[in-house]
Amino acid sequence: MPPFLRQYLPILDWGKSYSRQSLESDLLAAVIVTIMLIPQSLAYALLAGLPAEMGLYASILPLVAYAIFGTSRALAVGPVAVVSLMTAAAVGNLGLDDPRAIALAAITLAFLSGVFLTLMGLLKLGFVANFLSHPVIAGFITASGILIATSQLKHVLGVDASGHNLIETLAHLLGSIGDTNLWTLLIGVTATAFLFWVRKGLKPFLLGAGIKPRLAEVLTKAGPVAAVVVTTVITWGLGLQDRGVAIVGAVPRGLPPLTAPSFDLDLWAALVASAVLISIIGFVESVSVAQTLAARKRQRIDPDQELIGLGTSNIAASVSGGYPVTGGFARSVVNFDAGAETPAAGAFTAVGITLAALLLTPLLFFLPKATLAATIIVAVLSLVDFSILRHAWAYSRADFFAVATTILLTLGMGVEVGVSAGVVLSIFLHLYKTSRPHVAEIGLVPGTQHFRNICRHKVLTDPTMVTLRVDESLYFANARFLEDYVYDRVVGDRNLKNVVLNFPAVNEVDLSALESLESILHRLKDMGIKLHLSEVKGPVMDRLKRSHFLDELNGRVFLSQYDAHMALSQNAEVHAAAE
Amino acid sequence: MPPFLRQYLPILDWGKSYSRQSLESDLLAAVIVTIMLIPQSLAYALLAGLPAEMGLYASILPLVAYAIFGTSRALAVGPVAVVSLMTAAAVGNLGLDDPRAIALAAITLAFLSGVFLTLMGLLKLGFVANFLSHPVIAGFITASGILIATSQLKHVLGVDASGHNLIETLAHLLGSIGDTNLWTLLIGVTATAFLFWVRKGLKPFLLGAGIKPRLAEVLTKAGPVAAVVVTTVITWGLGLQDRGVAIVGAVPRGLPPLTAPSFDLDLWAALVASAVLISIIGFVESVSVAQTLAARKRQRIDPDQELIGLGTSNIAASVSGGYPVTGGFARSVVNFDAGAETPAAGAFTAVGITLAALLLTPLLFFLPKATLAATIIVAVLSLVDFSILRHAWAYSRADFFAVATTILLTLGMGVEVGVSAGVVLSIFLHLYKTSRPHVAEIGLVPGTQHFRNICRHKVLTDPTMVTLRVDESLYFANARFLEDYVYDRVVGDRNLKNVVLNFPAVNEVDLSALESLESILHRLKDMGIKLHLSEVKGPVMDRLKRSHFLDELNGRVFLSQYDAHMALSQNAEVHAAAE
Repeated sequence: MPPFLRQYLPILDWGKSYSRQSLESDLLAAVIVTIMLIPQSLAYALLAGLPAEMGLYASILPLVAYAIFGTSRALAVGPVAVVSLMTAAAVGNLGLDDPRAIALAAITLAFLSGVFLTLMGLLKLGFVANFLSHPVIAGFITASGILIATSQLKHVLGVDASGHNLIETLAHLLGSIGDTNLWTLLIGVTATAFLFWVRKGLKPFLLGAGIKPRLAEVLTKAGPVAAVVVTTVITWGLGLQDRGVAIVGAVPRGLPPLTAPSFDLDLWAALVASAVLISIIGFVESVSVAQTLAARKRQRIDPDQELIGLGTSNIAASVSGGYPVTGGFARSVVNFDAGAETPAAGAFTAVGITLAALLLTPLLFFLPKATLAATIIVAVLSLVDFSILRHAWAYSRADFFAVATTILLTLGMGVEVGVSAGVVLSIFLHLYKTSRPHVAEIGLVPGTQHFRNICRHKVLTDPTMVTLRVDESLYFANARFLEDYVYDRVVGDRNLKNVVLNFPAVNEVDLSALESLESILHRLKDMGIKLHLSEVKGPVMDRLKRSHFLDELNGRVFLSQYDAHMALSQNAEVHAAAE
Repeated sequence: MPPFLRQYLPILDWGKSYSRQSLESDLLAAVIVTIMLIPQSLAYALLAGLPAEMGLYASILPLVAYAIFGTSRALAVGPVAVVSLMTAAAVGNLGLDDPRAIALAAITLAFLSGVFLTLMGLLKLGFVANFLSHPVIAGFITASGILIATSQLKHVLGVDASGHNLIETLAHLLGSIGDTNLWTLLIGVTATAFLFWVRKGLKPFLLGAGIKPRLAEVLTKAGPVAAVVVTTVITWGLGLQDRGVAIVGAVPRGLPPLTAPSFDLDLWAALVASAVLISIIGFVESVSVAQTLAARKRQRIDPDQELIGLGTSNIAASVSGGYPVTGGFARSVVNFDAGAETPAAGAFTAVGITLAALLLTPLLFFLPKATLAATIIVAVLSLVDFSILRHAWAYSRADFFAVATTILLTLGMGVEVGVSAGVVLSIFLHLYKTSRPHVAEIGLVPGTQHFRNICRHKVLTDPTMVTLRVDESLYFANARFLEDYVYDRVVGDRNLKNVVLNFPAVNEVDLSALESLESILHRLKDMGIKLHLSEVKGPVMDRLKRSHFLDELNGRVFLSQYDAHMALSQNAEVHAAAE
């Protein structure tokens, strides 16, 4: 078997040693995830502004594709809350009315996202996900959770209200609260309360009643299905659809349809930025769940192959009537806890959902939308965690600022503006911080070979020399800063004969910084001062040797600062006052 | 006088001690710069796609504003080549036909740029200019010079040809080369050759002929004026305008008109991104000239106040019929060399240009556009310098890649795409480089207290401990990398009891990296391994103390790596093989 096949088809790796015991574990996990996924996939499709069946379709072929191409043993792929919200935003931007055009746009979005992810994987660009800072992602997820929960309140109240941001949505809700349908409200509130109880209280209750843990687990996960069944039966029995309760209605029965994305370049242009955002957010979420779960079993995942796994899943979604998918957090944890051993569990889940699409869809006719809204609300409120704000505030104002901005902009201006601003801001703050590096003037600690900040310690200095320790790599953002710093320090100091730049913390000197060093050198030469370097790291020295800087240097390069001190400070040694 | 007045009005500082000697120096410099500026300002206005007189107007009030608010003693403000090209691109994007609408758009662009620069200055955001890497700017200026020179060839040939990028322009030129007007070509080529000779050969020739250096300097700078006078007279005398030679035509005579920018928000939205780009590029160019010249006289400029100086200049341009201005490189050097001592030289230049606008404009009627094109071509070709590509290639592939991309995209897709791509790419490459930091496993050099890379040196190690030196600050882009690196190193090493992270080169640990350290700690705890830190810098330690990380740490924080070695490596010391 050629090595590249094994690299790109992880299934060949784990498939070889697939045992009967793995099969049993995977089947059990698949049953639990299927039970959990049926109501979720319907609900998330509605959240994305799509027909409920598209949620089911997005939970079939994509799972099979991931089972073939993915590397995580526990990741459960399918429609997830945040990506559904982002899909709604992206498709909503197009201003389409025709449901078929909306569905085609979502399919095309999945296709573009799939192609983008697969290309990133083939080009080994998985590291790009690291450019999103953790706090920014945490803030974004929290804000998205609030947006999603709020967007579902209209289904619980049974009113028409929507908006592009939190304030608009809340205003519409308040404006139409008088139109609340009491039957809908009853179903919605009861279902929400029931599901909260299932999540928090059912498992301890069952365990207390002597039920075995594994069965208790399955029963707990079946909570949403129970809510679906009970509210559907009640709605059908009482004819609540005639009393204003919105129901899912006719869901086509059968296998996922064969679909194709649009190849209209104008549509592509309108969707491509959203597709990139959805891909990256989806990937970051998915890969961090996958890594966490893999670490628990001391396994590894390959981020670049994960890109291919998620990419092919999305392409699979686009040819089978689905919409963008990724690895879901809660679902994957359930899959892991239920004992899933290989990606085959995902394929078995796909079989389960297929059976649901074939057999159960007629039974969904009377399912109240309020029940699905309750499912979403309970699921996403677990995403909401404002503690990141407290942690960030305590630890670093810059991180806090990035998180707070992400949350506020996501709530106020929507998911796409929010997460983009968070990414740009965290990069900007990083550049800002490194653009003003800490520079310390250092002197020799008496009786040692150590050098310390003259402002903090009692050290030996020499009026004819100054040593500056630069605590940052030198690159374009701080090149000018160092130039100014050195110039400010030496100007007007008539005794000065030697300047030493101490470089133990300088890990890089880029071309902009090299030009600044040259400019410092020329200015010092003009003033009759020698420039020396000390403790230059190997890679930095290799780099400097490629330029003319070392040839033009009028001073020396010392291996240690102590060597520099011994060579240059012969005349006089004076105590500096510790300030 | 309140201190803030002195801060924001540098004129109060130098104005106080203004002497007769300064006056004489400034007046002489103003005469030379005025002679240089008259043809340039006309030419650059045409380059920007505007009526010639707007170039004169942009050289009057803006210079007065800079004299009041600017801090550089030598900077000569006015229309410059690159900003004129960017103005042409920005206004061209609007697809306007009416010359009055085009002029209004340029005025509005100057206004937006002025407000943006002034705000940046008031908010002390001058450091943002440092986020542009030197090589990217150098590449952008070179590519712009080529674009500008090419765009002027149509005037030299006397044909109609324009394009949005180099290839389009060249293709149009080739396509219409058959329409070349021979009289125009004769004037254009002769003027270009003459101006090249003036630039390279006139001064040595005059000095050789016994002319005094200062007069030789003035005569050299008057070269373009001579070309203007001679070709105007010839065109008028031979009636060349009737033989197809394009002339400047009627230029309104008089003081600059009072104008106001448009307050149409749609126009603002269409121009704001261009205004930001023009502002930043103009500021970076201007401030680097100002700094270079100030350093020669051991003076300082204040970048934040420079923003205000350039901002008010642009606002002044917008109320007096001008268009975006900035400090010009060649012009400022001439001003400096001619002996300008204070910004008053700029104000005197403004008087000179005002006189030209009042008295000389009727004489410009028969001035051939080919002569102005020749002025531009000779001026901008001095900007073109491909040596940056050679330097970058020799020094660093990443810098080369950024420069080459900037040049290619500027030539191929225009100034705005080119410089934006250069900025984004240089930031991306910086993040990429720091996202995969150098991490060395280190051991003790026998008989010393020094620790070195075990792959490069013969050092002592201990099978129960591993020490990793991280050669980069830890932040979101490399947080995951360190997690993976540590995990890869320790997994499967059954003897391992202690992991030491050696942090002398870690200048920052942001919240993302803190989370990664916590995750490393938890994994090592699970494996029964202790995590220690050594040589943590003061600011990083202060930061870590704000989190729970140090409380949860199952190992210790050592001041020096030698302390860590002595404390942890008691059992056995083994020679590591130097590889």
